[in-house]
Amino acid sequence: MRMSTFSLSDSITILERTPAVLRAQLDGLPECWTTCNEGPKTWSAYDVVGHLIHGERADWIPRMRIVLEHGTTRAFDPFDRFAQERESVGKSLPELLDQFAHLRRGSIADLCAAHLRDADFDRRGRHPALGEVRLGNLIATWVVHDLGHLAQIARVMAKRYASEVGPWREYLPVLTR
Amino acid sequence: MRMSTFSLSDSITILERTPAVLRAQLDGLPECWTTCNEGPKTWSAYDVVGHLIHGERADWIPRMRIVLEHGTTRAFDPFDRFAQERESVGKSLPELLDQFAHLRRGSIADLCAAHLRDADFDRRGRHPALGEVRLGNLIATWVVHDLGHLAQIARVMAKRYASEVGPWREYLPVLTR
Repeated sequence: MRMSTFSLSDSITILERTPAVLRAQLDGLPECWTTCNEGPKTWSAYDVVGHLIHGERADWIPRMRIVLEHGTTRAFDPFDRFAQERESVGKSLPELLDQFAHLRRGSIADLCAAHLRDADFDRRGRHPALGEVRLGNLIATWVVHDLGHLAQIARVMAKRYASEVGPWREYLPVLTR
Repeated sequence: MRMSTFSLSDSITILERTPAVLRAQLDGLPECWTTCNEGPKTWSAYDVVGHLIHGERADWIPRMRIVLEHGTTRAFDPFDRFAQERESVGKSLPELLDQFAHLRRGSIADLCAAHLRDADFDRRGRHPALGEVRLGNLIATWVVHDLGHLAQIARVMAKRYASEVGPWREYLPVLTR
């Protein structure tokens, strides 16, 4: 018997609101906040939104389909963590936010249309590096991945004022993570 | 001459949107996401919103006023980090979100009404533990404090699925921070 805190409907309540959270946090901000990063080879909020877009296209739903259609016989395609460096070129942040919202709506529709039942979350697929994983792991990872990148965006923006806070720095752990 | 990335208007663009970010992230979520925490004596999203409310009442604008009126001659009142344990009792999360939005609107209005100029950001106050601080440090800390708690909320929620992600755990640094 599966003892778990995972639930599909709880997962969807998080996944479906991420576009609105990103809009509330980023849309209309001056570029100083959306293009700053944590140093060389780190990501800005703008970069993160591009990365999330690529995930909708190449990661979550495509991998769900591979699990459902091929089980462990076909490994997932490797995910390109740097795709946004090509795909975001020339796009404004509001365009990326719209694109992400559009793709996410489609992903949620596809997830619902799969009519997954509890037993399906134990179905297995094969990750090219991690080996055998379950469909429930994949959907939980999708949720955690969203939340992790929301935390990252807030942290990256916070660090823009790392020197400005003066003596308060020691009370602000977000600046040293 | 002050060389700094700090600007009052950039700070306000962050501060004024925090209530909407919290609403987008939390309003209407099932309690499993809003009351979960990282273990004993850690905070849930619900606790964090209560803490932010207390900050509007007791921290940012009251301390700005002490700097402007008393400089370093009067130390700030110590901030009660556990006030929300009393003050949130019996209140729903939507009520707290409304209350925070209302108080934050007032704080931004008070901040604007102070008509601060660049020279004012160098004015000094006295923190009861940290010693001498500048008004610019205080406002930058307010911004970083908001962003740090937004990052915290996303992290706390992510950890609810720490076991559910299975082998993906090693790719998700938000779960081990």
